[in-house]
Amino acid sequence: MAEYTLYSMQSSGNCYKPRLLMHQLGIGFRLVDTDAGKGETRTADFLARNPNGRVPLLTLPDGRQLPESNAILLYLAEGTRFLPADRYDRGVCYQWLFFEQYEHEPTIAVARSWLSVYPDRIGKATPEQLADWHRRGNRALAVMETRLSAADWLAGPAYSIADIALYAYTHVAHEGGFELNAYPGIGAWLKRVEAEPGYVPLAWRP
Amino acid sequence: MAEYTLYSMQSSGNCYKPRLLMHQLGIGFRLVDTDAGKGETRTADFLARNPNGRVPLLTLPDGRQLPESNAILLYLAEGTRFLPADRYDRGVCYQWLFFEQYEHEPTIAVARSWLSVYPDRIGKATPEQLADWHRRGNRALAVMETRLSAADWLAGPAYSIADIALYAYTHVAHEGGFELNAYPGIGAWLKRVEAEPGYVPLAWRP
Repeated sequence: MAEYTLYSMQSSGNCYKPRLLMHQLGIGFRLVDTDAGKGETRTADFLARNPNGRVPLLTLPDGRQLPESNAILLYLAEGTRFLPADRYDRGVCYQWLFFEQYEHEPTIAVARSWLSVYPDRIGKATPEQLADWHRRGNRALAVMETRLSAADWLAGPAYSIADIALYAYTHVAHEGGFELNAYPGIGAWLKRVEAEPGYVPLAWRP
Repeated sequence: MAEYTLYSMQSSGNCYKPRLLMHQLGIGFRLVDTDAGKGETRTADFLARNPNGRVPLLTLPDGRQLPESNAILLYLAEGTRFLPADRYDRGVCYQWLFFEQYEHEPTIAVARSWLSVYPDRIGKATPEQLADWHRRGNRALAVMETRLSAADWLAGPAYSIADIALYAYTHVAHEGGFELNAYPGIGAWLKRVEAEPGYVPLAWRP
């Protein structure tokens, strides 16, 4: 039977986002481990599927391809409780998705990848690089804290794909050298995300 | 009468995106020039509107705020011809919007800002920084070329906010030292965008 296929790297927060949402939506899928660190996203076969050479990549049951973690979240969440029904709340959800890819992932995920994920990188970031990632990453965390010290969820009154997108790398930020104790609103929100029905951790596989 | 207000920096491609879309949608708005280079996005008043301290920022007629250029595009385009009606095409539109903020803007717009926009930066980027922006920016342009050498528009069969988002910094990429002659598909697409009804250039003000 035709089904969804997710090309995914297990350690990647970006790849965790669609795994978590698909589990919470009850969508079955096949997982294809694709290790960017081993060049598996730059083979001719993979580039024919995604010219941008990155995971996650979702292959739909009809064979068409959809890359970009937050685009996959939006595509799958349309019409479900994971995308706010109110127009303004939906706008705020979009806002957090773009914030995540522009301000949060390039600092917090990158610091984590150099400190904890890729064996050939670990310990090789310069002090200047680390200081820059930490300065900008803490700035992004402070923006999240402004919202989460005053509201339970990032976009509107309920859990949404905005929370999934920001949770992915925030909950492992300590692996990038970030100290989350300074952000009590974020700490309480992480626990709320983990109490949602169908929550599965980053290590989960279908 | 209540209306939209756009906090915007005239030279910014990110701020140009909502100006162009609002003009094409026939939405009137007030423009408030807000120069990030002079610290105007980091004042207490501005941070109360957008804790992330960036433009563009759209204030809705009811007084609520919406930052992030591509979130503003999605918010305004919902239900119009500028967001594809087909579900998969809409997913592809989302994909390009995230690609733009992750792969394209941080290299092409940043190179432009250091070479042409901010007087206190011009000439101060290191050769290593420039080489890195050009390497990664040309990689992003090559991904666009793969699509635009085979299709008229980025997402689906018609002009959409994906085209607006990528046009904003692509059409001024030469100001960042990029050579667009190497990308004939992109060159033809730039002309198609500029022939769309209601097109206005980056310098346009309401």
